[in-house]
Amino acid sequence: MPTSRGRDVGLYPCERGTLAVRCLNRRRLRSYRESRNGNGVMTNLSIAAVSGIPDVQAGTDLAKAIVQALKDNNLQLKHHDVLVVAQKIVSKSEGRFVNLNDVKPGEQALALAARCRKDPRLVQVILDQSNRVVRCAPDILIVEHKLGLVMANAGIDKSNIGVFPDAQMVLLLPEHPDRSAQQLRCELQKLVQQDLGIIINDSFGRPWRLGTVGVAIGAAGIDCTDDRRGEVDMFGRILETTVVGRADEIASAASLVMGQGSERIPVVLVRGLGPSQNVSPALSMVRKSAEDLFR
Amino acid sequence: MPTSRGRDVGLYPCERGTLAVRCLNRRRLRSYRESRNGNGVMTNLSIAAVSGIPDVQAGTDLAKAIVQALKDNNLQLKHHDVLVVAQKIVSKSEGRFVNLNDVKPGEQALALAARCRKDPRLVQVILDQSNRVVRCAPDILIVEHKLGLVMANAGIDKSNIGVFPDAQMVLLLPEHPDRSAQQLRCELQKLVQQDLGIIINDSFGRPWRLGTVGVAIGAAGIDCTDDRRGEVDMFGRILETTVVGRADEIASAASLVMGQGSERIPVVLVRGLGPSQNVSPALSMVRKSAEDLFR
Repeated sequence: MPTSRGRDVGLYPCERGTLAVRCLNRRRLRSYRESRNGNGVMTNLSIAAVSGIPDVQAGTDLAKAIVQALKDNNLQLKHHDVLVVAQKIVSKSEGRFVNLNDVKPGEQALALAARCRKDPRLVQVILDQSNRVVRCAPDILIVEHKLGLVMANAGIDKSNIGVFPDAQMVLLLPEHPDRSAQQLRCELQKLVQQDLGIIINDSFGRPWRLGTVGVAIGAAGIDCTDDRRGEVDMFGRILETTVVGRADEIASAASLVMGQGSERIPVVLVRGLGPSQNVSPALSMVRKSAEDLFR
Repeated sequence: MPTSRGRDVGLYPCERGTLAVRCLNRRRLRSYRESRNGNGVMTNLSIAAVSGIPDVQAGTDLAKAIVQALKDNNLQLKHHDVLVVAQKIVSKSEGRFVNLNDVKPGEQALALAARCRKDPRLVQVILDQSNRVVRCAPDILIVEHKLGLVMANAGIDKSNIGVFPDAQMVLLLPEHPDRSAQQLRCELQKLVQQDLGIIINDSFGRPWRLGTVGVAIGAAGIDCTDDRRGEVDMFGRILETTVVGRADEIASAASLVMGQGSERIPVVLVRGLGPSQNVSPALSMVRKSAEDLFR
């Protein structure tokens, strides 16, 4: 997957031959120049809720459901639109459910559960998804997920996942969120014949700051980071250290309209970002421990 | 400052008697109901660059400059619009410059500067603005700012601050960013007779994740956090732990159009968030060390 600065956007193999993407590289460059205001930045964004997505279940065709909902919302996709999709519906469509009734907690899970006052079976599932425990305290269990993401409860959720009378279901993250994003992008592009970006977002708590914010855990067709090093400021001074976490900013922007509760807005359309130049996967935004000087 | 859930929005004393805000509490409640889609969330946001702000200097009247730029951009402010303003122009208007030529580094600054390879005078200014050093390594100095914010170089910046032939200027954060936001809000509201929200944003690096994202360091007239605890999900399950870092999500969304280099877009208009319900200052989002289980 091309990530180095200066290389043109790589198209995923599955896109080859589809009508919409044949001339994309050339079109991207042209429309990149047109869409920016001469100073390398977009000037306007619109962020629209895509409501009316039906309850997603294992096997639901997300691309079809999204296209139908866009139609119902009178929204027509354009080149370089970015769809931000809630992790929850991606996980559900991929059947990432675990029935706690089928889980037998081990010793470590039992000990941790006593400390964090959570269901030992849930703690076992969290451990199964994690590399290590970062923090355990009453009501709190923060781990490093196997994907490298540091998050509460390994991103495992009990809300908005459905009604299961004979089971106690919880929902895991997608197994490979970048792959999920890539697949959804391919399917959507086939349906709408437009060059799209996809972000799968989730809400993360943070060190030092209260409140969760939207974070990109999966992405396709997107510059996840925007490396501004080497550019000049408005007085000609060279920027030394600015790498922008662009995909996370988009994920946060979308979270503002997505909501957390009963809103049923798991998809948000972000328009105006312009074409991507140096596509990278969302998991490339995870800092390596050795390079993490912020903790 | 009222922050508890359920209380109506408090208006700052300076607003009393202005035409626009006399009936705001009642209007806020009505338009809150109207603006939300029945499920407690806004459905559309627009994020517009306010270009053409002239070079800001110590003493520049920011409110007037912003109103003029809005006119030049054919943007008319409406109730509940949120203006996100770059920390840099707030600091500049407040004259928060320090000339490194006037700084004599002490022993601690000299020792740290050797480790992080920065100008010892700059390191002295960083230390003067900080409670403690979080991390020091080649090219990196992360501190806890006196305001509680954990950030690189105490937020002190050398880019985009101007040309000073006989001085080596750096720019500090505003002394009280929430107060700056509040003052700007009052002045703008007097000029445009609309109920506004103000966020002062800055770019922060993060533990565990690469890339900087916009963060709210000052705010006025805004729900900085959105406490969803006690609400129900779409299957009737009560949300247990969801407090959303709303102001930071807005700050990040605005950063997408604000840019970092020569774009000259230090002000962004965010429309569609709806009225605020439980106004709180941005610094209330700083986690107390003892409660910070993420680090």
